[in-house]
Formats: sequence, C-alpha cells, structure tokens
Amino acid sequence: MTRFKLTIEYDGGAYSGWQRQDNALGIQQLIEEAIGEFCGETITLYGAGRTDAGVHASGQVAHFDLAREAGGDRVRDALNFHLRGQAVSILEACAVADDFDARFSARQRVYLYRLLDRRPPPALRAGKVWWVPVPLDAEAMNEAAALLPGKHDFSTFRAAHCQADGPVKTLDTLEVIRRGDEIQVTARARSFLYNQVRIVVGTLKLVGEGKWSPKDVKSALDARARARGGPTAPPEGLYLTEVVY
Amino acid sequence: MTRFKLTIEYDGGAYSGWQRQDNALGIQQLIEEAIGEFCGETITLYGAGRTDAGVHASGQVAHFDLAREAGGDRVRDALNFHLRGQAVSILEACAVADDFDARFSARQRVYLYRLLDRRPPPALRAGKVWWVPVPLDAEAMNEAAALLPGKHDFSTFRAAHCQADGPVKTLDTLEVIRRGDEIQVTARARSFLYNQVRIVVGTLKLVGEGKWSPKDVKSALDARARARGGPTAPPEGLYLTEVVY
Repeated sequence: MTRFKLTIEYDGGAYSGWQRQDNALGIQQLIEEAIGEFCGETITLYGAGRTDAGVHASGQVAHFDLAREAGGDRVRDALNFHLRGQAVSILEACAVADDFDARFSARQRVYLYRLLDRRPPPALRAGKVWWVPVPLDAEAMNEAAALLPGKHDFSTFRAAHCQADGPVKTLDTLEVIRRGDEIQVTARARSFLYNQVRIVVGTLKLVGEGKWSPKDVKSALDARARARGGPTAPPEGLYLTEVVY
Repeated sequence: MTRFKLTIEYDGGAYSGWQRQDNALGIQQLIEEAIGEFCGETITLYGAGRTDAGVHASGQVAHFDLAREAGGDRVRDALNFHLRGQAVSILEACAVADDFDARFSARQRVYLYRLLDRRPPPALRAGKVWWVPVPLDAEAMNEAAALLPGKHDFSTFRAAHCQADGPVKTLDTLEVIRRGDEIQVTARARSFLYNQVRIVVGTLKLVGEGKWSPKDVKSALDARARARGGPTAPPEGLYLTEVVY
C-alpha cells in the first residue's frame, strides 16, 4: 500500500461540489472513479477542503491509498487520462508517509476570492468572479479586513448548517487588494467555518460600497450572530488555492 | 446620426466567430440584434478584426451609426442588458467623429496568444489557452520571434483562403515571454494576414520544442511558402486585446 497526495485544479461551476453525493456529481467521486479505472481498485479519496458547488480550486489536496505499484508521475498522467473531458486536472501526485492526512494534517488553507469591480458584466471571466458593477473602495475593505484575523468566535460569519464543533477559529490573515479591474480577497486559516470566507467577503463588500464602516464589521464580529453579518457572497468567485502542511 | 465606437470583450468559444454568417451565430449579429432591441433600428456593425470561431477578444472595437439620441454610458448599459446571458460584454461605448472607421482607421491591432506549458491539462483555463504538455524554451522562441518584425512577404504565415490584397505586411513587434506556467506571445501590426498570428505561434512552438532553430524560422519566412511554415495554432489561445487608433 502506498499513500498518494494529489494536488488538484477544478472548475467548480461544472459540478455539485467536492463531496460525493447521492443525487449529484461530486468532484471527489469523479476522481475516485478515475482511480478505479486506472487500478481496478475501489478506493476512497479524502480531500482537504469540501468546497461547495460552484467553488473552484487551483490547489485542492486529497489523499488515497493504492495497492498497485506506480510512480507519482504515472499516477498523475493516468488520472488525467481518465478525467479527460472533465474540468478537473491532477496537477501533482506524489507518494507520502502513511500518516499523511489531506484533511487533518493541514496546517493552513488558503482561499482567494475574486470580485470583478466594473460596470460591464464579465464575458471571458463569466462564472469565475463575482461581478460587482458598483465601484468598491478596496482600501476601506482592507482596513475592515485587518480587524478580523486572530482567534475569535466567528458565529457572525458561520452558515446555519455548519458542522464544525464550535464557532471559534483562528483566522491567520485576511487581505484585500485591487488588481486591475478585480478586487481580490485572500484568507488564510488552519480551518474555516462553513461559508466563512463567503460571508466575510459579502460583509467586506458592504464596506467597499460605503454602506458599512470598518468599525461596523468589528461590531458584527463581536455580536456573534449570523444575522449581524453581511450576505453570503456567491460561490463562483471563490478558489481554494493552497493547502499548507 | 451619431457614430458610436464600441470596445468589446467576448469568449469566442461560444460562437462561430465575429462575422455575421448565414448558418451560424456570429458575435457581430448578436450585437446588431442587441442594438436593434435597444433602438428599434436595423443597423450594421463594423468590426476592427474579424476573429475566427474560438478566438477571444478583450478589446475588439466596432462602430455603428445611431439615429436615436443617447449618451455612451446609456448605450453601453442598454446593449449589455440586451446581451445578458451571452459571453459578450460591451466594455465601452462612446460617440466619435463621423469619419471614424473601426476597421480602416485602425493604426495597430494587438493580439495575445496564451500557451499553457505544463504537463497537466487545463481545468480552470480550458478553452482559454493552447495546452502544450511538453516543456518549451521561451527564450529560444523569443529569439526566433525577434527575426520576424518588419515589412516582409509573409506568405509562409498566410492561410490558403486569405482575402488580403497581397502577402506583404509590416509586423511591428512580436514578443514571447514566460509568465508562470504560461508562455505568452504578443503581436502588433496595422493589419495581419488570415491566420498569421496562429501560424506564427505554431511555428514558434517548433522552436520551443527544440525541433527548429530560430534560423529555421528565418529560412521559412524567406521561402515565402505556406508549406514551409509550422502548423496553425488552435484558436482558443488567441485574444484580440487592443486596437490602436
């Protein structure tokens, strides 16, 4: 048995999310089936982040155990062959120690959220950004973002059906920068609550529009109540870009 | 009558090219119909570059004449409203002098060609790049590219059904740079022969793979024969990014 670590890119818009589901096509299942076609084994793939439908990844990580002998490059190429036609690409496959766990060994997950801040709608980036046609103040958003890192009760930024043990998480960094016609929000933490990044972005957008001050974001955090947070930003702007071990 | 200049972004993968056609949906036609819905007039839209099926634009330019009175921003927003659901976006609309001609007034057209140079296939950039899974030598490609600018008989880089008056064109600049996992080729000229950029890129790729030397590219140019050029690169990597007036 060899444990393999996969680094995966996918266009989440084509699928119902990472996780295997009864009535919909999850990316996990697609890759499990590709592994099955490659090695004839029925295996389970464990992902670092269970991204929702529409959420993209440029650096999702997952692990599985393979009985068949094969090198990492061979595994990567074979899986990509069996995934052809899908918007899923195995960027890397490498053998790792038996105690490596894509989910539980992760020290940090990095998410990027892209807002397209321009009046005309996206054409080339359709489904890849959140289109916000009103001008946003990226500096004010970044000022507000600077108030959120640290260990907090993030109940304000937690979706109702979150399955985490509790609402306390440590947000390592949260940064907002303008890059051309996009505003990009980068969030780093060991783990996130369900929809945490999307609710944070939906809240920061209120600051960008001038509807909220940065102080309002701090008050919302302190209130520890979902009703005090902003709306949930749509999935198509969100990318799982990296998992650090 | 007011003449309007439009700057247009589109995902060429969804359409059969810029030009109105009898049996297929051209982007020109889509925008003409949107203008018709906006103003009730039947107008003709004149584009700066007749991009092929699959070729994208982030800065196509076109003009048309409008009898109805309207400001540029109003025209832009109205056309985007009528184009909703399409992968076509009007970035800008502005009133211009009556003698402005999107095609004939253009002093320079700028094309970008994106090659994804990595072993794993594209997922997030599917349909937006030419996937080349073998490592390319971008410096050698750029060295070869430096031999092509100037006024030449470009018959080697001209598709059979090119409708230009002759094969002599002036290529202003041609540059190859590596940007992350992409190799990007930028070409500037007042006008290009049919498929010229794609054949140039297909030829430069041979240099990148080490199959051709830069000198071979010069010999191919001097031969003035399509059979001596490289293959035509696929449309999905090509972008009309700017038209200079």
